[in-house]
Amino acid sequence: MVETEYIPESFNSIVQLLNEKYKDWEGVKQFGDTPRRLAELYNEFCWSPEKINKALDKHTRLFDDEYDEALSTSEIDVKTLCPHHLLPCTFKVRIKYSPNERVLGLSKFVRIAVILGKRPIMQEAYTRELADVLYERVEPHSVEVTVKGTHGCVQYRGALQNIEIETKVTRGYCSEEPLMVI
Amino acid sequence: MVETEYIPESFNSIVQLLNEKYKDWEGVKQFGDTPRRLAELYNEFCWSPEKINKALDKHTRLFDDEYDEALSTSEIDVKTLCPHHLLPCTFKVRIKYSPNERVLGLSKFVRIAVILGKRPIMQEAYTRELADVLYERVEPHSVEVTVKGTHGCVQYRGALQNIEIETKVTRGYCSEEPLMVI
Amino acid sequence: MVETEYIPESFNSIVQLLNEKYKDWEGVKQFGDTPRRLAELYNEFCWSPEKINKALDKHTRLFDDEYDEALSTSEIDVKTLCPHHLLPCTFKVRIKYSPNERVLGLSKFVRIAVILGKRPIMQEAYTRELADVLYERVEPHSVEVTVKGTHGCVQYRGALQNIEIETKVTRGYCSEEPLMVI
Amino acid sequence: MVETEYIPESFNSIVQLLNEKYKDWEGVKQFGDTPRRLAELYNEFCWSPEKINKALDKHTRLFDDEYDEALSTSEIDVKTLCPHHLLPCTFKVRIKYSPNERVLGLSKFVRIAVILGKRPIMQEAYTRELADVLYERVEPHSVEVTVKGTHGCVQYRGALQNIEIETKVTRGYCSEEPLMVI
Amino acid sequence: MVETEYIPESFNSIVQLLNEKYKDWEGVKQFGDTPRRLAELYNEFCWSPEKINKALDKHTRLFDDEYDEALSTSEIDVKTLCPHHLLPCTFKVRIKYSPNERVLGLSKFVRIAVILGKRPIMQEAYTRELADVLYERVEPHSVEVTVKGTHGCVQYRGALQNIEIETKVTRGYCSEEPLMVI
Amino acid sequence: MVETEYIPESFNSIVQLLNEKYKDWEGVKQFGDTPRRLAELYNEFCWSPEKINKALDKHTRLFDDEYDEALSTSEIDVKTLCPHHLLPCTFKVRIKYSPNERVLGLSKFVRIAVILGKRPIMQEAYTRELADVLYERVEPHSVEVTVKGTHGCVQYRGALQNIEIETKVTRGYCSEEPLMVI
Amino acid sequence: MVETEYIPESFNSIVQLLNEKYKDWEGVKQFGDTPRRLAELYNEFCWSPEKINKALDKHTRLFDDEYDEALSTSEIDVKTLCPHHLLPCTFKVRIKYSPNERVLGLSKFVRIAVILGKRPIMQEAYTRELADVLYERVEPHSVEVTVKGTHGCVQYRGALQNIEIETKVTRGYCSEEPLMVI
Amino acid sequence: MVETEYIPESFNSIVQLLNEKYKDWEGVKQFGDTPRRLAELYNEFCWSPEKINKALDKHTRLFDDEYDEALSTSEIDVKTLCPHHLLPCTFKVRIKYSPNERVLGLSKFVRIAVILGKRPIMQEAYTRELADVLYERVEPHSVEVTVKGTHGCVQYRGALQNIEIETKVTRGYCSEEPLMVI
Amino acid sequence: MVETEYIPESFNSIVQLLNEKYKDWEGVKQFGDTPRRLAELYNEFCWSPEKINKALDKHTRLFDDEYDEALSTSEIDVKTLCPHHLLPCTFKVRIKYSPNERVLGLSKFVRIAVILGKRPIMQEAYTRELADVLYERVEPHSVEVTVKGTHGCVQYRGALQNIEIETKVTRGYCSEEPLMVI
Amino acid sequence: MVETEYIPESFNSIVQLLNEKYKDWEGVKQFGDTPRRLAELYNEFCWSPEKINKALDKHTRLFDDEYDEALSTSEIDVKTLCPHHLLPCTFKVRIKYSPNERVLGLSKFVRIAVILGKRPIMQEAYTRELADVLYERVEPHSVEVTVKGTHGCVQYRGALQNIEIETKVTRGYCSEEPLMVI
Repeated sequence: MVETEYIPESFNSIVQLLNEKYKDWEGVKQFGDTPRRLAELYNEFCWSPEKINKALDKHTRLFDDEYDEALSTSEIDVKTLCPHHLLPCTFKVRIKYSPNERVLGLSKFVRIAVILGKRPIMQEAYTRELADVLYERVEPHSVEVTVKGTHGCVQYRGALQNIEIETKVTRGYCSEEPLMVI
Repeated sequence: MVETEYIPESFNSIVQLLNEKYKDWEGVKQFGDTPRRLAELYNEFCWSPEKINKALDKHTRLFDDEYDEALSTSEIDVKTLCPHHLLPCTFKVRIKYSPNERVLGLSKFVRIAVILGKRPIMQEAYTRELADVLYERVEPHSVEVTVKGTHGCVQYRGALQNIEIETKVTRGYCSEEPLMVI
Repeated sequence: MVETEYIPESFNSIVQLLNEKYKDWEGVKQFGDTPRRLAELYNEFCWSPEKINKALDKHTRLFDDEYDEALSTSEIDVKTLCPHHLLPCTFKVRIKYSPNERVLGLSKFVRIAVILGKRPIMQEAYTRELADVLYERVEPHSVEVTVKGTHGCVQYRGALQNIEIETKVTRGYCSEEPLMVI
Repeated sequence: MVETEYIPESFNSIVQLLNEKYKDWEGVKQFGDTPRRLAELYNEFCWSPEKINKALDKHTRLFDDEYDEALSTSEIDVKTLCPHHLLPCTFKVRIKYSPNERVLGLSKFVRIAVILGKRPIMQEAYTRELADVLYERVEPHSVEVTVKGTHGCVQYRGALQNIEIETKVTRGYCSEEPLMVI
Repeated sequence: MVETEYIPESFNSIVQLLNEKYKDWEGVKQFGDTPRRLAELYNEFCWSPEKINKALDKHTRLFDDEYDEALSTSEIDVKTLCPHHLLPCTFKVRIKYSPNERVLGLSKFVRIAVILGKRPIMQEAYTRELADVLYERVEPHSVEVTVKGTHGCVQYRGALQNIEIETKVTRGYCSEEPLMVI
Repeated sequence: MVETEYIPESFNSIVQLLNEKYKDWEGVKQFGDTPRRLAELYNEFCWSPEKINKALDKHTRLFDDEYDEALSTSEIDVKTLCPHHLLPCTFKVRIKYSPNERVLGLSKFVRIAVILGKRPIMQEAYTRELADVLYERVEPHSVEVTVKGTHGCVQYRGALQNIEIETKVTRGYCSEEPLMVI
Repeated sequence: MVETEYIPESFNSIVQLLNEKYKDWEGVKQFGDTPRRLAELYNEFCWSPEKINKALDKHTRLFDDEYDEALSTSEIDVKTLCPHHLLPCTFKVRIKYSPNERVLGLSKFVRIAVILGKRPIMQEAYTRELADVLYERVEPHSVEVTVKGTHGCVQYRGALQNIEIETKVTRGYCSEEPLMVI
Repeated sequence: MVETEYIPESFNSIVQLLNEKYKDWEGVKQFGDTPRRLAELYNEFCWSPEKINKALDKHTRLFDDEYDEALSTSEIDVKTLCPHHLLPCTFKVRIKYSPNERVLGLSKFVRIAVILGKRPIMQEAYTRELADVLYERVEPHSVEVTVKGTHGCVQYRGALQNIEIETKVTRGYCSEEPLMVI
Repeated sequence: MVETEYIPESFNSIVQLLNEKYKDWEGVKQFGDTPRRLAELYNEFCWSPEKINKALDKHTRLFDDEYDEALSTSEIDVKTLCPHHLLPCTFKVRIKYSPNERVLGLSKFVRIAVILGKRPIMQEAYTRELADVLYERVEPHSVEVTVKGTHGCVQYRGALQNIEIETKVTRGYCSEEPLMVI
Repeated sequence: MVETEYIPESFNSIVQLLNEKYKDWEGVKQFGDTPRRLAELYNEFCWSPEKINKALDKHTRLFDDEYDEALSTSEIDVKTLCPHHLLPCTFKVRIKYSPNERVLGLSKFVRIAVILGKRPIMQEAYTRELADVLYERVEPHSVEVTVKGTHGCVQYRGALQNIEIETKVTRGYCSEEPLMVI
């Protein structure tokens, strides 16, 4: 199956309006290649569900190892678009898991966290999906995903503050109750 | 209903006294526009209860989402006036909640925290009201509000130290007892 | 003259493509209000040249003062869109000037720096225009503008590094030669 | 001569408006003592020119000492009101001088810097006056005053950014030309 | 009752010995005003118990408020003399309490902590007294006082190290047992 | 010659006044040994000029070495009393010199800086004397002494700010003119 | 022309020796895919000169702009192999240039710095080539390249210290003399 | 038994390919000694299991001591190769143990941690083996090993992020259950 | 009893060997006074057990005080020699205790920690002895001693890493079990 | 020629005295191996001049390269003994040079700096010799050596302060005059 992709023409209408508004300003010449660049940008950050699944399949190969205590990553940098304004968001993702006879290659934590950001997605949903994908594919004793997100839509629209949001989802041991632990 | 607003004339008496005291000092010319500026300042920071309620209504729209673990914000910057000296206070507000099938848009945490500061209010009361507003309007499993405040009246009058005061209010799980946890 | 503004319909074509690509994914429901939000975003960051000029006129009122040595600001936060990808850029702007019998109100430095970012503009051009506007309207002995920019297009497309670019433009004393001073 | 002082009644009109606006809100009871507190506040920060001069006379006693190289202070904390909004400003003041056979007691640098802030005054004028007072009363070879100011009116009104403004004035050696040195 | 105060003559004997030892050194002229300055210093830091009690009475006014969760201060700067060497000590004091229907004005925490340092007092005793005063006068659910002290007598005499001592006293909930919690 | 020393009796009059003022307070028992401790303190910090000179003689032994470029120390910690209030001061001293065929043992820089603080002395005079002692006894090409002082009398009396004062004295090359270099 | 590439078989001899040495250790199973991974690694970091040139051609497109003062980047992260041990090196590269009527797209600085590291190359040569490429292709008034390198061969072999080496090369104004400026 | 070692010829095939690819580039001369250097590198980092065992035997001498509470090290720096790409990894290792009548010499913690890195080994396996070696040879009450690893293969291949992985293994008290403690 | 002391002659044999090895190097002249200096060094750091006991007796005087909650010190700097190489070690010692009706003078914590380092002693033994001395002489409810040591023998011999070792010993409450608490 | 080395017996006399002084203390058993360890220590840090020269010959191989601008290292860690007390010193060494057609391998800077510390040597002499060795063997345009030293003899004997001494020596351009530049 061929991935349907954005083409420059999809963005002509936006750029057309800019060209009109700035027709008397020398800066207008900078918009010449913008439709092509926008198409590339959206193709980079808006993968189809099928493409995401295939990429996940490729990067969840496991190694046998008897290691079964906690392993955690420092912050993984993930870039995505927010679904409300299509503005960039940055997620700093930490993963912690207790493997169960099979371990994930270390670079795969980065791969999986990045792949799941290739759709416009809310931070709450992203956190939950990353925990679920790891829990179902790696079958560890437990997994915990923590995400600190900064959102273009909070910084650029309305609220105008550079705050960071933290979400955390746990699967496996200790995760049944929706308790608020501080 | 039309919001009653301060007008420049309300501040003439203050500026009059300054004009007298400094009538022989060249700096006196700086007070020319001060009544107008004071009126704008008070209109900005002294909203009527009705205006505050309307603004809250507008910014507490919820999204359905099955996310139900803890979500927390980093420090939100809120500016207000203290009721005793009408001097500026700054509140650094952190919110943590465990949603219950409905989540608040991320930028709304900032909006609500800012709106509740649009009255001269003591930090203890502000903290309690913010927790109550979130608990009643968002109906989460639990919510926790932490405020670190610096107060013009502590820095400029009497005590003269730049200390910071921290208050915290919890609603929902674990919040029944007035325990002091350190 | 009425400012021509973006309307939600201008962004329907983009959102249409997202709706198709993600029609089988529950996240698709998040795009419902996106056209309206995009219109608000572009209206916020794409002012017409006339609107920019009017805003500048309003915020360059001067005070007489015999102060004539250097005055400088710490970093002013300016948000803009890059003209190539329409992605957010952040400029941290410092201004230094030596006034000449007339001084600018302190908050106006922030105002002017923000207003000039209300167009999709390259950092080099922004720096030059800010220096020119200040030099022509305030008529100081000299003015220096330093900008540190981070660019969504460098972080999200191709180069993928979070680097910062620094530009500096001087007008008045010492600024005739294109020397590279390190 | 007796210093004319503010009395609580001068502030009744402001508090009256607050009482009306918030008459149905429990927070209204906090305004009971506000007129008295405002009077104390203005008496603290609005000294008459005569009172300022007397205080300067008291705190510029000099000691004979043959020390004649540069002496500088770290940042002195000065609090004042801005003349435009009567909002608090904080000046961090550094003084550097090269004495000429007579030196100032070390604690007097703090005293003088604080006294000159006891009027609503613009930062440019404050910097210039502090340099002039030291140059005329201490008669050093040279003196340099650097002020970093944060202004309530920039943070609370309009511009809404926490920027810092730096001014510097030199008297004596090297200070004839209005050069911009970076 | 009139507060008995130190007079310059009380310090003549000390300065007399310095004058003798340094009679041939030009620095001797610096001791001329020392008795007067010492008297002022001791009057500042050695209040009578009555004066301390009166000051406490003045600064423990309470406000009604239903806030009943924990409130804590950042470090309050308190200066005192140590009773063994009469050398300066600095206490950095943090207070945490859970009020019970009545709250203390925020600047009063600073006032009370400063007043209780107006006697030469050991850190252990100071910490205990501050906790007792707050517990008895404010009647909170509980109160905790933490003090980090640096002592001139440790830095200048014998031990010669700049160490900091931390003490902590709790009253109310959880404070019955002399447990060492680490 | 025997060094005249302070004896506990010299301090009885001060402690007598404390005993009276606090006779009804349990803390009064802490003053029992204070006269003895004060005598030790003054003997430690008030050396006679002869004792200082002897100590300098002992610690300025030189080694032959052809090293003739700049050598500098990091901050040396010196404790002294201020001559006005007999309160502790701390000097952080840096020394830089260009030796001339003879070098000073490295630990001697510390020794000499400490010895010269064994009198109640103003910072300006201390800085000048340290530079002079090094210039005359070590005969280097040049020497520079920088002192950053914190003064009990600024922190505890009147000014009440923890500022730091920096002084610098140069002898030899480049030191003829009383220029203020910033 | 097709780029000649490494194939897994080229690395069989190395892995063969590891298999022999560790044949009795369970860790030996980890080497199964190592030849393939080594081939990919070398293809990634050992581009042919032709491939490098083509990539440079693609990424040195210029824009017309009258900006002609200094523009500088923060540190660009470049990874390469050292030619002596084929161990990884990391270069932190800063570029500063003064353009001459034509400016380089901001992301291109990153691109060019990365491309020139796609060969095993010494830091001195890399620095010089990057300066030359920019000077010849962008034709600025001047260009300066600063590189801070950490070298696997210094950290892992012999010297065993994590030191950083800094090199700097300038082209254009001020660059004729091989002066050592500190 | 003589340790089998790598010889330069084992690396000729790799260098041969570099020589061909870069035969027209002046940098090619840098590869002349590379085979010899690679042989030394692999001999340094690929010890046979026998050599590792002998080294462990030499460095696990114990001293009698009745100390039996926790002793921990700060981060020990260990360098190794990853088994998948033979790229350098750095492990920062912390060891904590509660000895049982016999203690290990302090420098031996470093020795043992370094020796166990002298094979291409995955971080999970390294952590487990270090804990096992200490538990079996030193026979403490308990031992805990924490490793923070950075991996050349994550930074240079594919994932391209400088993340750090943390693993922890405990032996003795409290270590039976594969719980995830956060 | 007179303390037996080292004399310079005890160190002649060592210096003799240095003199031979470096007889043709101009640096040899630096060893002239080394035997005397070594004797002083060993006398400073190798006190007899009797001298240590006497010093402890002098510095464990107690004051009555009803303070009975935890008191802790920041890091006390203790210098000692290691018994294996006679190289310097530095211990950073923190003490925490809960007194029982009698408190130790604050400077005595420093004194006691320093005195117990006046022998070549292993860190484990030092930590245990300090806890025992405090527990037996001060009779508190409980005492905890934490030591962070850096060891010349780890930094200079063999292991060659600047790691820090932490030991902790508790006496009194909670200290019966050799548990490993992390 | 065979290097004359220290043997354990050379240190028997020192350890004998320790054994006598501590014969009744259980810690005495720790001195059993001390003579052997001391011999190893001195062999490690007291190389003969011949051995030093040979090592320098081996590590000053040069590569041809046309790089001729400044190259500098970050701090190299060098350990040595001071000639007066035979106590450890640590030198943090930075080297900067402008090569002249031939460059030194990067790891050789570390090697040479370490080798020159393999004798008990004063910091002034070490700095001068390192500059001379580099200037004579590498023949650069210029070389600058900066050393920051901490000295056991300053920290452990007499002065008892942890100060750092900085020395700097330049050879080649600009180095003729013994000027003190600050």
